[in-house]
Amino acid sequence: MEWAMIATWRMAIEGITEASKLLENRESAGNAIEKAIKMVEDYPYYKSVGYGGLPNENGIVELDAGYMDGDTLSIGAVAGIRDFGNPISIAKKLSEERFNCFLVGIGAEEYAQKNGFERKNMLTDRAKQHYEKRIKETIEKGLSPYDGHDTVGMIALDRNKTMVAGTSTSGLFMKKRGRAGDSPVCGSGFYVDSEIGGATATGLGEDLMKGCISYEIVRLMREGYHPQDAADKAVLDLNNVLAKRRGKSGDLSVVCLNNKGEFGVATNIDGFSFSLVTENQEPTVYVCKNTDGKTTYEVASKEWLDKYIERIKSPITFD
Amino acid sequence: MEWAMIATWRMAIEGITEASKLLENRESAGNAIEKAIKMVEDYPYYKSVGYGGLPNENGIVELDAGYMDGDTLSIGAVAGIRDFGNPISIAKKLSEERFNCFLVGIGAEEYAQKNGFERKNMLTDRAKQHYEKRIKETIEKGLSPYDGHDTVGMIALDRNKTMVAGTSTSGLFMKKRGRAGDSPVCGSGFYVDSEIGGATATGLGEDLMKGCISYEIVRLMREGYHPQDAADKAVLDLNNVLAKRRGKSGDLSVVCLNNKGEFGVATNIDGFSFSLVTENQEPTVYVCKNTDGKTTYEVASKEWLDKYIERIKSPITFD
Repeated sequence: MEWAMIATWRMAIEGITEASKLLENRESAGNAIEKAIKMVEDYPYYKSVGYGGLPNENGIVELDAGYMDGDTLSIGAVAGIRDFGNPISIAKKLSEERFNCFLVGIGAEEYAQKNGFERKNMLTDRAKQHYEKRIKETIEKGLSPYDGHDTVGMIALDRNKTMVAGTSTSGLFMKKRGRAGDSPVCGSGFYVDSEIGGATATGLGEDLMKGCISYEIVRLMREGYHPQDAADKAVLDLNNVLAKRRGKSGDLSVVCLNNKGEFGVATNIDGFSFSLVTENQEPTVYVCKNTDGKTTYEVASKEWLDKYIERIKSPITFD
Repeated sequence: MEWAMIATWRMAIEGITEASKLLENRESAGNAIEKAIKMVEDYPYYKSVGYGGLPNENGIVELDAGYMDGDTLSIGAVAGIRDFGNPISIAKKLSEERFNCFLVGIGAEEYAQKNGFERKNMLTDRAKQHYEKRIKETIEKGLSPYDGHDTVGMIALDRNKTMVAGTSTSGLFMKKRGRAGDSPVCGSGFYVDSEIGGATATGLGEDLMKGCISYEIVRLMREGYHPQDAADKAVLDLNNVLAKRRGKSGDLSVVCLNNKGEFGVATNIDGFSFSLVTENQEPTVYVCKNTDGKTTYEVASKEWLDKYIERIKSPITFD
């Protein structure tokens, strides 16, 4: 396979569709990742990434992103950044730095400002309504407010055999101020080595970090595992360790791609979806099932895809 | 071995000496780690950790810390926190949270404040003089200002066979505001699993993160490697990969301990020191050499130890 791109969730499909044209035209995996993730960040109806992303418990949208170049292993990442439209572009820019490539909070904002990134109020009216609804449904009833942490993570392979990984998220809905999950953390939210392959994760960041799951998947691929076997093994092993040591595991979902363009996907939940495009395959959304620790998937039906659009655009109603 | 404790650098020796009394008295590895690291944080002459730690390029002391419980794999971490005396205690407290256990910047400070940790101005006159001297010697001459990133990292094994890892640092001297290194990053700055062992790293965080080095060492120990072989292999492999892909590697130094109390240490620099105490051995400082990718060490001489104290307390002179 000359080029390929895989991403977590249905929300990536428009982005990887556009980015696939770059890869087809011999552009770099880095530009493809940035293009694709920016499209997810910019779309206001995706409520867990970028503009329209759900706010923290203080009503402020705080964003995390990570970027890694599989040739040089250069990393760039931001955590808890506010008021910038495209965290993935800031992370990509940071990956050019030998020092100070992972910036948090105000420091990340200062860097973005100095490097010409435009400030943007990232809280939409719709996200604010989600926030108000969530407070009524949970905190006011004494229930746990935490929900929704659907990171977009992507791996791309280009015609020069360079591989790049990227992530972007608004993190756990109703998170505490300053909370970072796995998305900006190298080895947990993402990892890529062009000589082997790359992996990226979504789910409960606090639990994904306990297993350095993206690093582990790439390592298994280096040992000779097919990406599908590597993904299944890493998710099953971490799920089982967390169940044994802690009584339960949070959501763990991953996608990965090796440098031959072979891919893998694994999850410990039903309903995880992912998006794929390759030289030989049109952009396609798949929906996963987990059966006895083995992940299977099928092409998303027209009905599933229609319901998805209906759901993300449906009015927010208060009981 | 019933209990043991290993730590990066000479600066850990007073802390692990005190903490060894706790371990001897059947107290938990977690309390031992907190006690030992607090002593390093509190000592004003250690200029890379806690009080007296060197500031960022804005003259502000920003601190990072990580804590991991090897039984539950619970993690707590803070990055870019200002004005709190004992980041390790905040990280330990955060490890009790299922959600929001990694906090950065202002969010970390809010959590610390709400949980009763006392605010403290962490910038000493001596650190301020170091800062002013550094600016004159580097930035005013157009040279790179980055220097000094000597994280204290520790692993403890207690009589209940629980293992805990902890780290604390003021990070890269003259770092950009908000810069996080490997110290608060699970898998890079620290990793521990009581069924296997633990590892912790110090050096250039930006490069240590590219290899998830602490996770990799624990994984090698799980495969059956002796801690010394695991440490040597992980440091040599990462050093070589970075040299090949990037032309050079930053400083990489690690210590590790398995659940039998056997330890390992590896570095790609000369002069890395570490501190060790076990049931059968008095607290001891060792100094390392790297020869052809193999780390050797010997007990620090009285002369070396005396010179160390002289150096850390010497007046700061301006040319």
